[in-house]
Order: sequence, then structure tokens, then C-alpha cells
Amino acid sequence: MADYTRLLRVARGEEPADLVVQNGLLVNVLTREIYPATVGICEDVIAYVTAPDDAHCAGREVIDATGKWLAPGLIDSHMHIESSHVTPARFADAVLPLGVTTVAQDPHEMANVLGIAGVDYMREASRNLPLRVLTFVPTCVPAVPGLETAGASFTATEVGQLLDDPDTIGLAEVMDYWGVVRQSPRITEIVKLGRERGAILTGHVRFGEDRNLNAYLAAGIESDHGRMPPERLLARARLGMVVEVCCAPDRDNIPEIVELWREHGLLHNVIFVTDDISPGDLITHGHLDQGVRRAIELGMDPVDAIRAATAGPARRLRRNRGAPGESLGAIAPGYLADLLVLDDLSTFSVHLTVVSGRIVARDGEMVTESHESISPPSSALSSFHLPTLQADDFAVRGPGETVRARVITDRGKGLDVRTVPVTNGNVDWQSDPDLALVSVWHRHGHNENHAFALIAGTGLRTGALATTYAHDSHNLVVIGRNTTDMATAANALRSSGGGYVAVSGGKILGQVALPVAGLLSQLSVPEVAGEFASYVAAANAVGVVENPIRLVTSLPLPVVPNFRPTDLGLVDVSRQTFVPAFEFSG
Amino acid sequence: MADYTRLLRVARGEEPADLVVQNGLLVNVLTREIYPATVGICEDVIAYVTAPDDAHCAGREVIDATGKWLAPGLIDSHMHIESSHVTPARFADAVLPLGVTTVAQDPHEMANVLGIAGVDYMREASRNLPLRVLTFVPTCVPAVPGLETAGASFTATEVGQLLDDPDTIGLAEVMDYWGVVRQSPRITEIVKLGRERGAILTGHVRFGEDRNLNAYLAAGIESDHGRMPPERLLARARLGMVVEVCCAPDRDNIPEIVELWREHGLLHNVIFVTDDISPGDLITHGHLDQGVRRAIELGMDPVDAIRAATAGPARRLRRNRGAPGESLGAIAPGYLADLLVLDDLSTFSVHLTVVSGRIVARDGEMVTESHESISPPSSALSSFHLPTLQADDFAVRGPGETVRARVITDRGKGLDVRTVPVTNGNVDWQSDPDLALVSVWHRHGHNENHAFALIAGTGLRTGALATTYAHDSHNLVVIGRNTTDMATAANALRSSGGGYVAVSGGKILGQVALPVAGLLSQLSVPEVAGEFASYVAAANAVGVVENPIRLVTSLPLPVVPNFRPTDLGLVDVSRQTFVPAFEFSG
Repeated sequence: MADYTRLLRVARGEEPADLVVQNGLLVNVLTREIYPATVGICEDVIAYVTAPDDAHCAGREVIDATGKWLAPGLIDSHMHIESSHVTPARFADAVLPLGVTTVAQDPHEMANVLGIAGVDYMREASRNLPLRVLTFVPTCVPAVPGLETAGASFTATEVGQLLDDPDTIGLAEVMDYWGVVRQSPRITEIVKLGRERGAILTGHVRFGEDRNLNAYLAAGIESDHGRMPPERLLARARLGMVVEVCCAPDRDNIPEIVELWREHGLLHNVIFVTDDISPGDLITHGHLDQGVRRAIELGMDPVDAIRAATAGPARRLRRNRGAPGESLGAIAPGYLADLLVLDDLSTFSVHLTVVSGRIVARDGEMVTESHESISPPSSALSSFHLPTLQADDFAVRGPGETVRARVITDRGKGLDVRTVPVTNGNVDWQSDPDLALVSVWHRHGHNENHAFALIAGTGLRTGALATTYAHDSHNLVVIGRNTTDMATAANALRSSGGGYVAVSGGKILGQVALPVAGLLSQLSVPEVAGEFASYVAAANAVGVVENPIRLVTSLPLPVVPNFRPTDLGLVDVSRQTFVPAFEFSG
Repeated sequence: MADYTRLLRVARGEEPADLVVQNGLLVNVLTREIYPATVGICEDVIAYVTAPDDAHCAGREVIDATGKWLAPGLIDSHMHIESSHVTPARFADAVLPLGVTTVAQDPHEMANVLGIAGVDYMREASRNLPLRVLTFVPTCVPAVPGLETAGASFTATEVGQLLDDPDTIGLAEVMDYWGVVRQSPRITEIVKLGRERGAILTGHVRFGEDRNLNAYLAAGIESDHGRMPPERLLARARLGMVVEVCCAPDRDNIPEIVELWREHGLLHNVIFVTDDISPGDLITHGHLDQGVRRAIELGMDPVDAIRAATAGPARRLRRNRGAPGESLGAIAPGYLADLLVLDDLSTFSVHLTVVSGRIVARDGEMVTESHESISPPSSALSSFHLPTLQADDFAVRGPGETVRARVITDRGKGLDVRTVPVTNGNVDWQSDPDLALVSVWHRHGHNENHAFALIAGTGLRTGALATTYAHDSHNLVVIGRNTTDMATAANALRSSGGGYVAVSGGKILGQVALPVAGLLSQLSVPEVAGEFASYVAAANAVGVVENPIRLVTSLPLPVVPNFRPTDLGLVDVSRQTFVPAFEFSG
């Protein structure tokens, strides 16, 4: 933090500023105006904002912003770095040139694999980066206890230990919303702990705008980032929720928010977040900036769109002016000097990114690459705790001549009961070209759980797909048309430490290596995006045309309707219980 | 705070609420809308807000609000209870029926008389009242060190000690703004302490929107409540200030704010405060409610006007939803149940005031009178530390036949040099009917300071006026046309423990008894207002027609232009130094 004495002297013009950005068109997100201004920065803090004709604006470095715009750096108040499959430094390098200067991460995926060590790594690796990273404490590890086994399990004890760290700012999305309103002990203790600590309580809730949602809010949880129509977004804002509007291209809620804005004007608790951005989308569409850009394209006032990604989230993170921490999200004296020089407002083209008063990116490139202060812990680099598997390990055995199988359809949304032949004690699912076998293997070394089910309609014609990045427990998921390729796929991930792989005829057709916890690469976002493209092309080649990443990644998530395979068996999500995948008659 | 388990059960409709307010027109200050709703309260917290046709709204007590409005309780984020001259309980009884449910007091006057004991008393006496009272720590005790002597003197040590109390929320108005930007040691230490503690930093600053104001804001101070034209209010909002708009009838900034609202729409950092409300104004015009009412009358949207006195100040006090404390300022699940049932919106007529879920006032009357948990300390009840004075104590003596006197004009705004005769070693100011003698006596027992000056144009024809409520040091001020009546006035205040008095011909014509620190009465606001009316009538009778309260109360304030008498002498405010009131030639 800037030296107080010097800061006030620079503000008064008694000393030159460290950096002066002169005569830009200031996007004032506090008063919702644009007007010319000159900004003086002392160390990491904005010392003054003054008229361009002010004579007392000497600076050690002066940037002429004539004809350009000045906007606060973008703030993403709900996101998972893991979704971009890179370490925090590589993530910083990807988003800073886009104008994102602060993110509040929920290291939920790392927590599910490595527990406290995973959260510690993500927090420590985010320190001293040019990107400002705040950290929420994951609350739902695993997402639903009893329905799957993860790499770790958090009670209020672990959550409390993580909240003790001054760098953590609150509870990450409390997605066990039924547990909250029905007051199940584990999540109730965690929520109560968050309340006692005065922490920010982040939510994820699929209730309608009903009395259950009232109870969830009365518990002190503040927000949600579900995609929904404008009238539901409004209904939630009415109840005092922080409405986090998702900018991820595949779950984009921007048109709805622009419609709401058009009808109701600016709602100060409606803000933009990204939640999950894949490396490919990051390269192609951008990050939080693409939400701003798209909102402007759809007709939202640019200042209001920028506000929803700056002052709005700053307030949500208690970093607005007047909050106890250092102020973020606006360009005004006393705020941290995180700001952008834009070449163009309507396309949100970022020329310069300034963080803490330093120029960190220029014209789409980092000025210098970011460095993490720590390396991944050894537990992260050896997180795949399964032995080499054989084709035989994927055999589904049982008595009789047929089996009544509950077949997953529509990628988990449906269930279909089919009779499948049993040949020599092996379920002969291969005889039906529409079927594939899905297997989920506990990969964290705590037990030997694994379970099988059949799935129809994936398009998979041959070979196998596998991943270690499977929500939320990140067990090994293998889907295949033959058991040999399934074993090959599993073993390929064992070799790489995790990732995604597509195999056919014993050959690896495409692969993403995610050696850090089976979740992250240490390569750059463009490099990882390239690997994902190779995996997608390979999966397409073996018949999976529709999003082959999501197929393997989202299939086992037992909080999403309706039928989900986990390492413990086939879950009926609506009843939160297991149903047999195979009922043998013999 | 409501029991968590029960709160969630009430929210879900599994248990009856304690209080249900049914089918009112909800003033939603978050989305700026009005629509019918039913509100369920569990203990002191709002459990749910639902549609009026929701069948699950049983309550132990049910209020039918059909045809009425529901609004959040009003929140005054900058005010001095002392200005209303009553103790906190009597103040609560006066404002709760008007719809004010939270005030953030700055016990600045008590601090100047009694130091830490004064702040402690105001804070303790405000506990457990039906009115929610938050307390800022006075920072400028005395307002300008060296130019007057007060009852106490605060450095960072005293301020730090008071900030340690969990009931104090920040630094009260830092009015030594020159000291801040010029970094004078005492106030710099206090501001730095506030920053380190993460406290709310309240301001009072007369700078223009210039580089000095930038420095004041860069120091971390957030707000001001000075009265000014719309363009200056906007300029301050642009710089990220919290613009506190004064509602006090005598310093009303409401027309300007309505003009700003009309041109720029709702600015979320622009809020209403009262600062100082006299007992008479409180009875005649109201408190913060009168600001809301007047803004609506002048054309401001009622929802926005109410927002500026509810959600706006709640945020300023860090009591918005998502802040670490309990949420205030809106009607939504999880917020504290402070709400109003209004008979009429446009006139802001309060039918019921509910605080912490309890009905505390109905149709202009308290349901039960408030009780303070503590009595004023003995130091407060014996704060007048002067002996009985004689007429002779008011004689101004000097050599020669004339004296060159600097005569205060225009109630302190001007200065006039006049030659006044000296008779038998006494300055014979009585010979000029336009002149009065003003004397200021240190009354706190720390020294024997007193000083004289002449004042012209007060209108005083005969007798004397005196007060112990004289900003900011609250020394004894006596203005008179003859020294006998001046002594009588001083001695009358000695007998009553302080207050205001008007004397003529040796008789007390009108009096306000303020026995608590010479600042407060223990009577009700209507009773005190009655006493003030008697004082004003008496002062009018002896010739002071224009505001005889302000004449004695504001005359010695050495931060207001231009020439002010204190116990140390006559202050030239612009040069912050003394000038001789009398220059004897002999």
C-alpha cells in the first residue's frame, strides 16, 4: 500500500506522481458518466482524478490517453481457475491482457482432489501475481456426501481452518441447498461458522423464488449464478440476492440481463461473473470482458455494463469504498490503481492493463510473464492413485442369460430400462451399437470403489474416452465401446498424471495432459487450448460430436438431474439415492 | 439475533412467524419498485417476503396492511443526539414514531465536555433502546487545538481506546481537514489509526472539488455533509465521496438533491442525514422523515427518496446485505426486522414502527416509553465548574480615555474597528446602544481562562443572554447590555447545571435547563422544545429577534468564518490566530 505521506503529497501536487494517465475519457461507474479526466497514481493507489487542464500533473511516467477511454479493471467475483485448466500464473497471463484485474476464486476442484493442501496451493500460487486473486473457501467437498467419494471431505473444522487465513474472504458456493434449508448437520455447521466469522456467504441454488429460497437467504447466503429468464433474475434481486449473471459462452445469461436492464434500469446487485471458462472459450471469446462486450452489443449502456463487472462485484466482495479493505472497482482518489486504457469503448478493446499502478499488459500481450512463488506440492503431481488397469477390469459380470439394465440416456437426464444379453457370465453390452459402458473409479487412494453403468446415445462408435476432471469428485471416468481401449485410456491418464484422452484401436488419438492434480496443466492457456482441440477432434472421430468434454466431465455430478454414475453406483438425483445399474435375474 | 433453526423453519412455513404484516404495498428499495407482499418475521429478523396469496403465512400476531405501504425503517448515518438536547432514551421516543429506526451518532459535544466519559455515557445510554444507535468516535476534540480550551482533548490514544469498543463503528467527522492534507501530527495519527483498524472514516470538509479534496479522500475519508449546489454534489460523487445531504430545516439541501436526481437519476452514494435537529424543529418538522417527505413533495420518486434514507445509509454504515454485520435498510429475508407501515406514501405518514420485530410506535405515539440502562455520570451532572460571578467580573478594564476595539459584526462574519471611551479605567461600551459585551468562560475546571470582546448589531437592547451549549468547546458564553444581568445569567446557568437563559432587570425571563453536561435535558423533546420557546420569546423581548439560540451557540466556533471569540481571545479564523479585542492606548 502506498506510503501515506507521499500519497497525500502527490494528491495535492506537491510531488510528481509515479504514473499519470492523461486526458482519457473517464468511465465513471459511480455516477454513470463519461468525461475527460487525468488520473495520477502514487505507487499502487490512485492519488487524484482531475481535469485535463490541471497544471499540476507531473509524473515519472506519463501516458497520453487522448481519444481513449479509462475504465476500472474488471472484477470477477465468482469463478474457478481450474475450469481454465492452468495454474494461477498462466491464468493471470491469459486474462490480464483482456482487462480482468481481480478474480475471486473458488478452488473447489482442487479441494475435492487434495483437500486443504489443494486450497493452500491455489491460494499460495496466486500470491504476488500481477492479477489480484481473492480466495473463497470451498464448502461442499464432496458436493453430496454419501453419493460419491472424493479426494477429501470438509467439515466445519477444515472450513474454519481455511477461513483463519487472512487471504480467504468467505464461503464459496454453498451448493448443498437442500442441506441448508433442511438443516442437515454438516452444511448447517459450515454456514453457521461463516455467519459467526462475518464471512461473505456465496450461494448456488436451484430453488424457484419460493419459501425454500427465502430460507436459504435467511440463512445468510447471498448469491447465485444460475442461468434463468429475466423475470426470475428480477424476482431474486427483489429478495435481496446478489444476482451473478454468467458470462461463460456456453451458459451465457447476458441477453436476459440486457432485457432486464432495458425494462428496469440498473440494478446494483446484478453483476457479471464467469464461473467456468474453458481454455478454448478463453482464447476464442475472452473472459469477463466478453460478457461486457456482449452486453454492449445487445444494447446495454457501456457504462452500466462496465459497472456490472467493476463497482458491482467490488461491492459484492466488500471492496467498495467505505468497506474495510482496500477499495476496488472505480477510478477515484484512494482506490487501488487497477485500471484499463481502452482503444474503443463499444468493443471493449483493451490497450493497457494497469494493476497496482504498474502497466502489466499492452495491446493483448503481457509486458512480462507471471511467476508463481510456489510449485505444485508433490501430492498434486501424483494424484492418480490407481494401478495399471486391464481390459478384464472393465468386464461386467453376472449370472443368467440376460440382465435388466438401467441405461442412462440423454447424457444423464433420462433413464431407460433395457434387457441386455449375458454371455459366459459377461454382460454383452457391446452387441448393441447404441450402448457404451461408463465406469467411474475412485482415483484418490482412499478406497477401491468403482462402479459401472450403461449409457445410450453418446454417439461413440468405437474406442474410449476418459478423464480425471469429472465433477465434483474428479474420479476417473472412462466411457468406451470396448474394454481394451478403456483400459488403454485409463492407463494413458495414469501416465500423464491425469487429463483427457480419446483412444481407439489401442492408439491415443488425442490427449490433454493435466498433471497437476489431474486438473491443471503448467502450460499456457493457448497451449492447453490446443491440446483440448486435439482431444475434441479425436472424440469427434470416434463418433462423439456433441461436446465430448462435457460428456465425460459432467456425467458423474450427482447434483444435476437426473441419473448420474459415481464411484459408488448409479444415483437417482431427485431422490438422492442409488438405483441398481444391473439387475441380474439368475 | 433470531434463533437460526427457528428462523429457517419460519421461512419455509414449518412454524408460524412471530409477526406477519400481510398484504402491504412493499417499497422495495433494492429494485426500486412497489408491489403487494406479505412479510413474515421470526424474532428480530425478516424470515420471508412472499406473495399475499401464499397460504403458509400463519403468525402469532398478524397485521393487515391492506391499502398501506411497507417501507424499511429510516437510517440516519450522521447525526448528533446532543443537538436535540435530550438523552438517548428521550430522543428515541421522539424519532421512533416518525419512522427513524437507526441512527449513527457522533457524540462530539459530550466528548468536548466530558471526554471519554461523555462518549461512554452516550454509548451506554443508547444500549438496549428500541432505537438502534451506532456510535462514531469523535476525532476533533477540541475542534482546533490552541484556539480554545475544551473539557477534554483527544489524541490517537483516546480515539484508539474508544475504537476498541465493539459498539463503535468508525471515526466521526474529521473536520480538521487542513490538518489532514497538511499532515499535522495529531489528526494524521488519528486518521492512520482509523485506516489501520478498517474503520468507517467520516468527513466534514469545506474544500472545493480540487486537489486538496483529492488528498482528503486519498487519506481514506469518505464523506461530507456540507450544503452546496447540485453541480458540487455531483462533482463530489464523481470523486467517490459519500454525499450526505442535510435534511435539517435550517440547512436543508433537499431542493439541490432533487435537482441532481432529476438530471442524473439515482446516485447510490447520495444519502440523507440530519446532522443537527433542534427540539423545536423535531416537533414542528420531524427528523429524517421530513427530508424524505420534502424530497417527495419536490418531485423525487418516493422509492428513491426512501432509498436515500434506508438502503443508501445502510450501505454507508456497512450494514447492507453482504456486509459483515446484521443487514439493515431493506425488507428482504435475513434483514433485521426494522420496518414501517405507512398510511400514505407521498406524505410519508407513519402508522406503525417495527424495530427488531417489535411494534414500538403506533400512530405517532410510543407503545411504551424507552428506558435508559444507565443514568448520567456524576461528572455530567456537575459539569459547570465556575464560581458564582459578580457584575464586577464582567468589567473590561484598561488605561487611558479611549480604547481601539475590534468589534464583531454580522454575528461573527465581520469585524469593525471602533473607538470606545474608557471611564475610570472601565471600557464604557454601554454608552453605545448598538454594542453588547460578549464573554467566554472556560467552564470545565481545567483553567481560569475567560475573554471579552464587543459585538455590534445583535439587537440586544437590555439584559443578557447566556448558554453553556456553545460550539465546540461548550464553554460559558454570556452576551449582555449590562454586567449585573450578565452575572445573573451566568449564575442562573450555574444553578441549573447549564442550558440557555435570558435575563433582564435581574429577572430570569426565559430558560432552558440542560443539567446533563450543560448540553442535555432529561425531559422529553416536547418539554424541552417548550423551554426553548420560552427562551426565544424572552430573547425576542430584550431585542434579539433573529435566531437567539444560534447567536450564543455558534458565536465561539473557531472553524466558521471569520471572527470568533473563545475563552482564549478573539480568533481570526482565516488566519487561525488571535487578534486583540481591545488595544488600549495608555
